[in-house]
Amino acid sequence: MNIHTPNYLAQTLRHRRQKLATLIDFPVVLWSGNSISRNFGANVFPFRASSHFLYFAGLPLPNTVIRLDAGKLELFMDDPKPSSALWHGEMPRSEKIAQMIGADVTRPMIELDFWVEDAATIAVQDAATWTQQSQLMNRWILPQSPPQGIDLELALAIIQLRLCHDDSALAELRFAAAITVEAHKAGMKAATNAKIEAEVRAAMEKVIIAHNMTTSYNSIVTVHGEVLHNEQYHNPVQKGDLILADVGAETSGGWAADVTRTFPASGEFSSTQRDIYNVVLAAHDACIAQVRPSVEYEDIHLLACTVIASGLVDLGILQGNPQDLVEMDAHALFFPHGIGHLLGLDVHDMEDLGDLAGYEQARQRSDRFGLGYLRLNRPLRPGMLVTIEPGFYQVPAILNDVQLRSKYQNVVNWERLSQFADVRGIRIEDDVFVTDEGREVLTAALPTGASIVEDLVKDS
Amino acid sequence: MNIHTPNYLAQTLRHRRQKLATLIDFPVVLWSGNSISRNFGANVFPFRASSHFLYFAGLPLPNTVIRLDAGKLELFMDDPKPSSALWHGEMPRSEKIAQMIGADVTRPMIELDFWVEDAATIAVQDAATWTQQSQLMNRWILPQSPPQGIDLELALAIIQLRLCHDDSALAELRFAAAITVEAHKAGMKAATNAKIEAEVRAAMEKVIIAHNMTTSYNSIVTVHGEVLHNEQYHNPVQKGDLILADVGAETSGGWAADVTRTFPASGEFSSTQRDIYNVVLAAHDACIAQVRPSVEYEDIHLLACTVIASGLVDLGILQGNPQDLVEMDAHALFFPHGIGHLLGLDVHDMEDLGDLAGYEQARQRSDRFGLGYLRLNRPLRPGMLVTIEPGFYQVPAILNDVQLRSKYQNVVNWERLSQFADVRGIRIEDDVFVTDEGREVLTAALPTGASIVEDLVKDS
Repeated sequence: MNIHTPNYLAQTLRHRRQKLATLIDFPVVLWSGNSISRNFGANVFPFRASSHFLYFAGLPLPNTVIRLDAGKLELFMDDPKPSSALWHGEMPRSEKIAQMIGADVTRPMIELDFWVEDAATIAVQDAATWTQQSQLMNRWILPQSPPQGIDLELALAIIQLRLCHDDSALAELRFAAAITVEAHKAGMKAATNAKIEAEVRAAMEKVIIAHNMTTSYNSIVTVHGEVLHNEQYHNPVQKGDLILADVGAETSGGWAADVTRTFPASGEFSSTQRDIYNVVLAAHDACIAQVRPSVEYEDIHLLACTVIASGLVDLGILQGNPQDLVEMDAHALFFPHGIGHLLGLDVHDMEDLGDLAGYEQARQRSDRFGLGYLRLNRPLRPGMLVTIEPGFYQVPAILNDVQLRSKYQNVVNWERLSQFADVRGIRIEDDVFVTDEGREVLTAALPTGASIVEDLVKDS
Repeated sequence: MNIHTPNYLAQTLRHRRQKLATLIDFPVVLWSGNSISRNFGANVFPFRASSHFLYFAGLPLPNTVIRLDAGKLELFMDDPKPSSALWHGEMPRSEKIAQMIGADVTRPMIELDFWVEDAATIAVQDAATWTQQSQLMNRWILPQSPPQGIDLELALAIIQLRLCHDDSALAELRFAAAITVEAHKAGMKAATNAKIEAEVRAAMEKVIIAHNMTTSYNSIVTVHGEVLHNEQYHNPVQKGDLILADVGAETSGGWAADVTRTFPASGEFSSTQRDIYNVVLAAHDACIAQVRPSVEYEDIHLLACTVIASGLVDLGILQGNPQDLVEMDAHALFFPHGIGHLLGLDVHDMEDLGDLAGYEQARQRSDRFGLGYLRLNRPLRPGMLVTIEPGFYQVPAILNDVQLRSKYQNVVNWERLSQFADVRGIRIEDDVFVTDEGREVLTAALPTGASIVEDLVKDS
């Protein structure tokens, strides 16, 4: 079976729900969610279906519900009202949708009431939908609250499926990655002529929009890479600036990519920028080389910490033995986040379930400064897709913190560090698929080497 | 006072709340709203503050409340937590914001509870916020329900202000219009090489993103202009197609533009396309020429209907006297929507209040086929900004409707109509500001003439 097989979608979905049926013995009802109003009722944000719904229903159908029971798929949706054809054109009727996704039964929404008893569900993000879920299921179904009882059993079963991607998912993830690579190349080419960050962002998102895709998260495109979740784009781009671009595409079925590159706006790294870039790149390469089944993701994180600490010792910024520095979390002064996370239908896959997906059962977040932000702590398994995204940042909130400065007084050469003032933030991030033998970097077509990146920027 | 005056924003906002204080004698509490999750908690849609909040607070501040009382402005917001600086950088503190917007007092959110008594408010769209509004005000504040009591008085007072734009608003609206014009030109230039609709959309939105702006509504860029709210972009663009592009930019302060052009993908209208285009253009030009204070907007709508009916009679598509055809709503077979709407902080300005803003007091929507979709029915006043957007569409849901076909059996020459099969949908839309003497077309820099449009498309 391949992606060109007739009914490939329907077959994929059948396999998924049959697998689910081997894990749980109660029915499941999943809502897609509703469009959410922006500033008035009719002006809505682009509809995004719930990821759990998408996994089993394949299509981004608003205001739709599926019921899964012992491998069967029941579709609950209303046919569009005749009046909607004027504004929205002829939409596919429920029978047509049922055929596309291989549903066994189609029912109008009003019958849903009779089919939710003893079923499990997962909260959808939008309030209209989780209110409806709560009313029909006769218990609170809240996106902020951890699932309980059979809802928890369902969540754990879905996690088991979604942790390891099937061929159909992988094909979508490859497509998201490929378009993301093109977007990043366009961003690099736009850098030398950009007056503000927004122009680089525009060049990148243009590629994504032109492929009829959306971004899988709000893009970060900034000369202030030290602001980790910077969603502003107004800053001027100046000759000596590094541009950090963290941008990913999402396919129409909801599958995401998540890629970061950092490049010199002028097309030339300064020597200090190149030095730090190469430290981050060494961590990136070393971590990717470690990705294979059974390896603990936390160990990959710690490897990144050690390579970064070691590189910073070589540059004279840190002082001491790299291993010791990592044990005292000194790396986290400059690399305060985790090495990456799960990637799939969500850019932080299944983060709607808190740490249930990211953390192996019985494991919990560390309270260590250098580990607490790690979003994934499991042994890797074939079929997992993870990001590898080491970075170096000079975050004022960290480096000017009195307690941290005092704690790390003797391991940081602050004077030497001041010579690297033109390196505010660097991150290099790729999407790495765990194969049976090792790994495949889905975003490998986007170069990482400093000179090749410079060449791409100069080719504008 | 002009836009370069120091504290221009603060002065603008002071004038607005002083005007409000002349209309009502009770305090007002307005919420900005919260970010809304997309597929998981941390992955949010780009934040859009409530338009009523923006009108009086000027800045898109999430999770913020203002209280207006007798011309005074009190700002309720919490300073960012220290930990947020790591992820979001140093954000301005409330004192700084207060200074920018000219607030008289700043208070932490927790004190809001003591300041809502006897105050009026307007529902914000997001559920977390309207739930909070309802709890604090101790009554239901729902975005779907018409306001009551002092909330209704407040809504009517705000409408009176927002109906007619001040200089500061006009400056923002001009900027939104100018960038929108550039976006449309880019779309036209991208047409001849586009393989699918999404590529034209991408060229347009690139311009908007590059100016650090957003779209004010989900773009319509389609070869199926007959689907009035078409938000799909996957169709191939073929040589004989018309592309209908309805795309508008929104400034960072929330002010919108709303512009439509229809152009031949090849750079050449067919003779049938040109004939119909010129009918729509004649309606567009005639309507704009009528925009001036005291003119009834409904009369402008009826003028469009008459010009279109007349043009279609000349082309042999309709048969009869144009005035009679309009009286029997025959125009609505091809022009089923209204001639336009209010434009301001919302693309359908203040539509969150239903028809309170669009319809003069005591007027109600008509149930006539040719009038029911009119969103604005007031005499024009200086300072109003309206769209003028006549169109011609062959909507299957209308033209194949058995009842309509039978009713209009004798006034449509169906055989003649079939010769215009390559004209599925045409709309020409501009943003027209009502001046003391007449009008100013804010989007006049974007040509409408068929030949000039062709030249723009060919200049790719």
